[in-house]
Amino acid sequence: MSETDNKITSYFDTRTTVRRYSDKPVTPELINSLLASAAHAPTTGNMQLYSVIVTTSPEGKAALSPAHFNQPQVKNAPVVLTFCADFHRFCRWCEERDARAGYDNFQSFVTAMIDTVILAQQFVTLAELSGLGTCYLGTTTYNAPQIAEALSLPEMVIPVTTVTVGWPEEKGEDCGRIPANAFIHQETYSDYDAQRINDIYAEKEARADSMKFVAENNKQTLAQVFTDVRYTREANTYFSQVYRDFINRHGFPFPPVEE
Amino acid sequence: MSETDNKITSYFDTRTTVRRYSDKPVTPELINSLLASAAHAPTTGNMQLYSVIVTTSPEGKAALSPAHFNQPQVKNAPVVLTFCADFHRFCRWCEERDARAGYDNFQSFVTAMIDTVILAQQFVTLAELSGLGTCYLGTTTYNAPQIAEALSLPEMVIPVTTVTVGWPEEKGEDCGRIPANAFIHQETYSDYDAQRINDIYAEKEARADSMKFVAENNKQTLAQVFTDVRYTREANTYFSQVYRDFINRHGFPFPPVEE
Repeated sequence: MSETDNKITSYFDTRTTVRRYSDKPVTPELINSLLASAAHAPTTGNMQLYSVIVTTSPEGKAALSPAHFNQPQVKNAPVVLTFCADFHRFCRWCEERDARAGYDNFQSFVTAMIDTVILAQQFVTLAELSGLGTCYLGTTTYNAPQIAEALSLPEMVIPVTTVTVGWPEEKGEDCGRIPANAFIHQETYSDYDAQRINDIYAEKEARADSMKFVAENNKQTLAQVFTDVRYTREANTYFSQVYRDFINRHGFPFPPVEE
Repeated sequence: MSETDNKITSYFDTRTTVRRYSDKPVTPELINSLLASAAHAPTTGNMQLYSVIVTTSPEGKAALSPAHFNQPQVKNAPVVLTFCADFHRFCRWCEERDARAGYDNFQSFVTAMIDTVILAQQFVTLAELSGLGTCYLGTTTYNAPQIAEALSLPEMVIPVTTVTVGWPEEKGEDCGRIPANAFIHQETYSDYDAQRINDIYAEKEARADSMKFVAENNKQTLAQVFTDVRYTREANTYFSQVYRDFINRHGFPFPPVEE
């Protein structure tokens, strides 16, 4: 294996999310060039069903911030990128070319969403390989209506994920992963018994930061921190309705429920 | 910029999808190692809401093939990977740890789907950097029920995308991309008028392969090949219902429609 290969492999195995950025500016040329390279990633039928909204102005960040529950990296990052599933541009093309688009449905939304996440991840890899730090914001699917309003998104353009970008002010914490054989299945899905669950999550549960989470939140187990504090049934149920209704009203009605 | 940087940049800008593979085997160790590295990609709350089913047996590929409309690369690829959104393992952990999971909803499905596509794309990048050829199969969201049956997927495990993998027998065709400024928007979404649509799609429409598509299908415009042949309203409507019903029945009921 060559030195180049080693450098690349080492990046992929040691990358971490970075939430704090230095004051050093990130040039528009760099962002454009990274996004242009990222767009060579695979896309369904070469349709490129995405748009990226680049926010660098203080006003723009301030408008987005509440939708992301005022997580500090939105206002503090030099660049905030909102990755949107976009069938609007493609349908405009169809309209101009006497073609009758049939993309106002769930399947097309899912296709555009997959295209969008592929682009986002390819951008993140390219940005990190260039020395930038990045952080995904999962809040994008919670408060999509506010984000769409702040960014003037037309119908068929749905916010899917957001990435904050800047030169790292910190290294970022390695938060560990479950063993790969826990999510890899040979030929068919091999279900999990209690012993295998114990084995898979043992290392994660034994981490100092995990134990701190449990103690700080007055919980008995790490899993309870997820279910009772971080990703609760109440929040999930509420934001399921919000996101589903938004997608449906914003160009992608879902099919009627069949009884 | 160093030689390493140039090599990396050049890969990202020139990669192509590969559908034909040589007979050279792909070792299980290589697949496992690439998936393990890919899992260092970002994941929501470090929950890793995915599973990957590895199919290498002729019987396994034969079982999957019809679900992918018998595209030849399913039977011909040494390895077929089905990337699934998976909240089942996480919920099993919650169950074992006295935590009440609230993930049987649309928002959680979307979260797991994003995690899954990030993993898939990171795997594709790592595989291609190792010299392997890959091809995504969008048919996964069409025939998810058959795929779930072939792979024995339990509730809360939803097929999202499939990647065929092997050593390239061909270079793969560079199918071009629209200009990056066509999908990048500064601060707010800048809508498309007829002139901008013409500018964006001019190069794509002028390609020899595009003109061949139009002629072969007896259409007037390239857009009509998409709307009338490749991605029709009829197919999208039908498969919207199939995928939505499957996701709903298989652990993620969507919220009721509010009138």
